[in-house]
Amino acid sequence: MSLTAPESIQGFRFAAAAAGLKKRGGLDVAIAVADAPVTTATVTTTNLVKAAPVVLTDERAKKGKAQALLVNAGCANACTGAPGMKAAKDTTKALGKALGIDEALVLPSSTGVIGQLLPADKVTKAIPGLVASLSPDAWDAFSQAILTTDRGPKVAAARVKIDGKTVRLLGIAKGAGMIHPNMATTLAFVFSDAKLSAPFAKKLLRAATDQTFNVASVDGDTSTNDTIAWMSSGASKVAIDPKEGTGMVKLLDGLVDVLGSLADLIVADGEGAEHLVRFAVSGARSVEDAKTIARTIATSNLVKTALHGKDPNWGRIVAAAGRAGVPFDPNKVELRIGDVAIVKKGLFLGMEAEKKAAEVMKTPEFAVHLKLGAGPLQATYTTCDFGHEYVRINADYRS
Amino acid sequence: MSLTAPESIQGFRFAAAAAGLKKRGGLDVAIAVADAPVTTATVTTTNLVKAAPVVLTDERAKKGKAQALLVNAGCANACTGAPGMKAAKDTTKALGKALGIDEALVLPSSTGVIGQLLPADKVTKAIPGLVASLSPDAWDAFSQAILTTDRGPKVAAARVKIDGKTVRLLGIAKGAGMIHPNMATTLAFVFSDAKLSAPFAKKLLRAATDQTFNVASVDGDTSTNDTIAWMSSGASKVAIDPKEGTGMVKLLDGLVDVLGSLADLIVADGEGAEHLVRFAVSGARSVEDAKTIARTIATSNLVKTALHGKDPNWGRIVAAAGRAGVPFDPNKVELRIGDVAIVKKGLFLGMEAEKKAAEVMKTPEFAVHLKLGAGPLQATYTTCDFGHEYVRINADYRS
Repeated sequence: MSLTAPESIQGFRFAAAAAGLKKRGGLDVAIAVADAPVTTATVTTTNLVKAAPVVLTDERAKKGKAQALLVNAGCANACTGAPGMKAAKDTTKALGKALGIDEALVLPSSTGVIGQLLPADKVTKAIPGLVASLSPDAWDAFSQAILTTDRGPKVAAARVKIDGKTVRLLGIAKGAGMIHPNMATTLAFVFSDAKLSAPFAKKLLRAATDQTFNVASVDGDTSTNDTIAWMSSGASKVAIDPKEGTGMVKLLDGLVDVLGSLADLIVADGEGAEHLVRFAVSGARSVEDAKTIARTIATSNLVKTALHGKDPNWGRIVAAAGRAGVPFDPNKVELRIGDVAIVKKGLFLGMEAEKKAAEVMKTPEFAVHLKLGAGPLQATYTTCDFGHEYVRINADYRS
Repeated sequence: MSLTAPESIQGFRFAAAAAGLKKRGGLDVAIAVADAPVTTATVTTTNLVKAAPVVLTDERAKKGKAQALLVNAGCANACTGAPGMKAAKDTTKALGKALGIDEALVLPSSTGVIGQLLPADKVTKAIPGLVASLSPDAWDAFSQAILTTDRGPKVAAARVKIDGKTVRLLGIAKGAGMIHPNMATTLAFVFSDAKLSAPFAKKLLRAATDQTFNVASVDGDTSTNDTIAWMSSGASKVAIDPKEGTGMVKLLDGLVDVLGSLADLIVADGEGAEHLVRFAVSGARSVEDAKTIARTIATSNLVKTALHGKDPNWGRIVAAAGRAGVPFDPNKVELRIGDVAIVKKGLFLGMEAEKKAAEVMKTPEFAVHLKLGAGPLQATYTTCDFGHEYVRINADYRS
């Protein structure tokens, strides 16, 4: 692991302001600005219904260059039609003008209630103050401004040594509810100082996302606004050549560490969650088989409520595996909760094992391991428990 | 609709007893017995992990003839390996002996906690009393004995007129949690007096199940024990010929009415549910497309918690549709909650519409209609809201 304490990244400045978008007040608009146009890669929602800022970001990120991010919380600006698109364009235009750069170099992101039009005037009014207060250390304020139902900010940083030099990565994310494979209502931004091409950055970002955000779930819903954006300034002067394996592998490791850490923070902050649980499925015929079963277990409401009740209800886990659509022999199955074997050859090992497993389930983070005995391959899926807080937050979110 | 008040069905007798399988006591074993071997069709879980009674029922129902059902609640006898299969066989053998019929004519069903072995001795001890108390009117006691977390018994009956004669159907079900398309932890039994062949009964049962239980969901989980069994005595002397359309259509209608009514009762009793909601999706290119979108909406936790909060959070409905994997143009979408249009051409119609929709959502039963504008076809999916009771019941189920 290459994780370190969060630190500023050469070539980037940040700012945040309270523009009056959040009902309860507080910071709700943030910008990140590079000293010049830099290599930028994005991964956005697979939802057919895309928010206006996602449509605009997709369009603009195609060039692989950007210089600024404009992020707001409190309003998703999704399902808002032409007026929503106008609001997204107008606000990025205002930021471009204030920074003296082409508006096409500004990528917008929004998060909050779906169906509410972004009040462009409120954002525009905040822009002069934001630009005036830009600072390399304001990533902290940035990390607070982008939150919605989150319990707290989510920041992760890494350093990787390449050819004796140091490359730094700083990741900032938001997200608690509506999290699911393709990153629903997740915003994650990574800033780094490596030097690499845009197509190469895109490949690395996709690979890192598949290993992190795409195998994490809070509630099975995907959103209209998910965006992961990675901007790399090149200020470290460490050039990453796709043909030279070592640098690439190290940078990818750093990126996986940062995104993985952010994904864990998000799942652990799953609305009302008290436990972070990793479901490992091994002994599968293919990685895809293992992933399908792990996902089916990790997204089962019955399994997730049992996690909340600290109940080693292994029957629900085995039953969820059984409906995943992947063939295996239930009589060969082995299940461990933490280090405790609770099922062997498909049979329950007894109350003593169950009691020990219940002890493991009281801890804030643990692994559950299902061995299928059908092949050599495996996969892991991260999830959280499902409790009263989730219902409270989501039944009352808008009231 | 052919629904009538529940009534006994010529050719069948029922009995129920308290065998000590339920922790809290009460009726927990029930039998239904036909006067002779009768036409029998079954549909059972698609879960790979099948409980012992399901494996045995699948095997025995292949012949299309059965004479008795042996049902218990309080123990699912699933994931119990060879001892579980022995318990299922031993208990049906004891019932066969007491009735003086071949044990292969007895179909077992179990529901309750997964992973606990059926205490065969308790069931066997109850059998003499059960057989002694058989009565045509004891379907009521039968309906109570098979319940687990249900708030109450679920019974529906229908009469259909064919060639001037009356055919009667009586349906009895249990199920509240773990309900999903392929009927998870649902047991449903239909008794009728029509005369028809077993292969034809199987076809009708499949068709009726697809229109009812397979488009209803409480929590997205499917179980190891789901069984729908239909026994028809022929005592009405009304023969249903597959080649003569009218009788077949009328019998199918009756079966759909009975199973549909039972499915509604189950969803309305979804653990902690306060609302029965029908999501209709029209304007699709295919029925499959419409069904996929309706199912994705109806099983979204975010949508279901919004239903619980009586919150017309249409954005969550549209966002769920958008991640269903079916192409449509979000700008053509129209959404109605009850009679209230809340979205037209993809755009929110304003707070006045939202307020009216919120009024509709206070009622115990309503429809939500999403028009895609992509084609001529439609489908409906029935679901319930998702509240604190669900979490309470499922986090604490075994404690």
